[in-house]
Amino acid sequence: MSRTGAWIVTVGDELLRGEIVDSNKSFLSERLLQLDLESTRHLTVADDPEAIAEVLRDAARRARVVLVSGGLGPTRDDITTEVAAKTFGRALLRDEAALAEIRGFFERLGREMSPNNAKQADFPEGADILPNPMGTAPGFMLDVEGSLLFFMPGVPRELYRMTDEEVLPRIRARLGGRGVVRAALLRTFGMGESTLDRHVDDLVRDDPDAQLGFRTQFPDNLLRVVVRAPDEAAAETKLAALVAQVRERLGELVIGDGAQELEQIVGAMLLERGVTLATAESCSGGLLASRLTDVPGSSAYLLAGLVTYSNASKIRDLGVPAALIEAHGAVSEEVARAMADGVRRLTGAAMGVATTGVAGPGGGSEDKPVGTVCIGLSDAAGTLAFRYQLMAERWRNKQMSSHLALDWIRRRLLGLEITENSFPRLRGEEPRP
Amino acid sequence: MSRTGAWIVTVGDELLRGEIVDSNKSFLSERLLQLDLESTRHLTVADDPEAIAEVLRDAARRARVVLVSGGLGPTRDDITTEVAAKTFGRALLRDEAALAEIRGFFERLGREMSPNNAKQADFPEGADILPNPMGTAPGFMLDVEGSLLFFMPGVPRELYRMTDEEVLPRIRARLGGRGVVRAALLRTFGMGESTLDRHVDDLVRDDPDAQLGFRTQFPDNLLRVVVRAPDEAAAETKLAALVAQVRERLGELVIGDGAQELEQIVGAMLLERGVTLATAESCSGGLLASRLTDVPGSSAYLLAGLVTYSNASKIRDLGVPAALIEAHGAVSEEVARAMADGVRRLTGAAMGVATTGVAGPGGGSEDKPVGTVCIGLSDAAGTLAFRYQLMAERWRNKQMSSHLALDWIRRRLLGLEITENSFPRLRGEEPRP
Repeated sequence: MSRTGAWIVTVGDELLRGEIVDSNKSFLSERLLQLDLESTRHLTVADDPEAIAEVLRDAARRARVVLVSGGLGPTRDDITTEVAAKTFGRALLRDEAALAEIRGFFERLGREMSPNNAKQADFPEGADILPNPMGTAPGFMLDVEGSLLFFMPGVPRELYRMTDEEVLPRIRARLGGRGVVRAALLRTFGMGESTLDRHVDDLVRDDPDAQLGFRTQFPDNLLRVVVRAPDEAAAETKLAALVAQVRERLGELVIGDGAQELEQIVGAMLLERGVTLATAESCSGGLLASRLTDVPGSSAYLLAGLVTYSNASKIRDLGVPAALIEAHGAVSEEVARAMADGVRRLTGAAMGVATTGVAGPGGGSEDKPVGTVCIGLSDAAGTLAFRYQLMAERWRNKQMSSHLALDWIRRRLLGLEITENSFPRLRGEEPRP
Repeated sequence: MSRTGAWIVTVGDELLRGEIVDSNKSFLSERLLQLDLESTRHLTVADDPEAIAEVLRDAARRARVVLVSGGLGPTRDDITTEVAAKTFGRALLRDEAALAEIRGFFERLGREMSPNNAKQADFPEGADILPNPMGTAPGFMLDVEGSLLFFMPGVPRELYRMTDEEVLPRIRARLGGRGVVRAALLRTFGMGESTLDRHVDDLVRDDPDAQLGFRTQFPDNLLRVVVRAPDEAAAETKLAALVAQVRERLGELVIGDGAQELEQIVGAMLLERGVTLATAESCSGGLLASRLTDVPGSSAYLLAGLVTYSNASKIRDLGVPAALIEAHGAVSEEVARAMADGVRRLTGAAMGVATTGVAGPGGGSEDKPVGTVCIGLSDAAGTLAFRYQLMAERWRNKQMSSHLALDWIRRRLLGLEITENSFPRLRGEEPRP
């Protein structure tokens, strides 16, 4: 039987119980596509030796590449390594270098290694060990009669890094010689997925070697540009040309490189321009400050953030006039402006941004239903605020208000005009999350 | 070969490309568990006749119940029904009643039925048709020599409803009378996974009908307690007894029900006790306030949050004496105490909590390396602060400092003593994420 494509196997009772959504598989499939390698099957099996053995045997017979995740931990449940050794008739050998690595991992944290962790240094004979800089479980590769099986930990961030640094290069080296695929990921905000698609789909309609793919990372939409060409140089050129066309079509809706979150993009801009910032949050409840401080070095531009969750705090801490709240309500463009001004005055920051809204599920009124959100911004050039009507879920409303505030900062720093129509998606064009 | 458990099969190229995370499988697994039916395998196959046929044949031979979703649509790619008929040697017959239903569906929307949709009224001979009130694709059940195969559309809301209204009742009717399984999920914080395991594993060692499972949801560890018994009453009793034993062993490390996040647990306690709260954050950068405000109704107890990211803001907004920062540094137990006191005084809240630390990756010193974090708490009974040494990654340090602050609130409200040793894991026992 000739082998084709890749199988992705995840191991773990918890996956089969439905306690968690298994997102490793979509990550791995996407990465394989970059190597022009299609996933032909996804499987999840229990922490059960016979089931794992059966699937591994099947996979090695049928797929060129097999990516296995899970079951490399230190507990009794973690049996993937042992089963792999047995299934393919290999002895289980302790690797002293790996053991030293694991011990070192604990030492760097100032902790003692538990005896259970020693088994994480056991590998099937002939395994190519894959280092895990982010955890205690190294991965490994087995070549089973030409089928490449990669075993990785199930912890997503460990798996992601190991895939990119250890697994993909090995696959590339072994399966090279096919056409070259290059891909770029653009981050867009403000337009729904199917509208985006309609804006750009003609760019690739007649080219079987170019594709545009869309993926939502709420509230952004990521646009993947994929091209294929006979060699690397041709692929790079083709990719650059297509990316430029897409960017031209979408203009300011492209907020940057897909691998960077909006807060990283905005943080880099603030740093580069030497602009200091302060935040005044009501409906986003600290999420805006938290996202800004997710970026290393953010203390260079974020002077302070206030979560003025009560009217008393808006009045006392930001100097919002009580009469203004009385007249327009705490959720109003007027109060958003006063909050942005207030936090800028209080902190001496060059720019102040504010959110106020009804995050829900309670607190809505006919006039201001759940999802009503006002964003305000104040800098030396002036103060502005707009009102938006968002979705009806609390976490989405928090996420979206912090996102709007961040994108306002981006637009302001770029000298783009901010209008009520800056975000087509919020004009009711398309509600798709 | 005797058949056990359930297989869940999803069909669709888009799932294999990783464009979307396949959440139907976790939904279906969870529903099956309620019937004491374990999912023993999850599979995803391409829209490819041979691959689908192979998996269906395998599944019918091996599983008592097979849930298949996807490939019932009107397009050329949708081939599941056709392949199922062929695989099990059944003719494909048009069902006039189903066709009338589909036509009616379009009429109700004021649209015309496309000719493609007619094929959605074709079913393998002997199929039990499952109505789809939310879409055009009815599902169907096949009994293949005693294995029950259910075919459903892939659209989540259609699948959810069909599962609950059509599929589960049929499974219950056919497979009734087996043992009963009951499970509970406990949330723990402060002890690593393998140490937890060692603390409780003897409780189930000799009982094949009881299991303990562990899963990390950083920084918590979830502990799943599963028991099986001949009937419902016995299962409930057995579960309650085992849960009580586990809780007794782990004491205050059990923070509550596993389905509830720490911020929900703490929020409910604050609400119940009528205690108001204010936060003063440095290293957690707004994440503490954001987590607190993730809980609907949190405006009832959270008065305000300050993200005093600069020394100026600590001094100006919280009244921390400049001399204190000068003498001990911003990251110190002294400053954490002054921040907690200050925010309580400023806002009039019953309780003030504070975080200050070196989130990293920059800003560490020999004396206070990255991951040094101080938590402070102030209420009518007094003010306290302790220093911890956390992991070395920024997002973990933020997450963990906000988590420690939340757990301090919980412990304080429960009248538990907070000491330097409240969190065994932070004593260097075990770093596993």
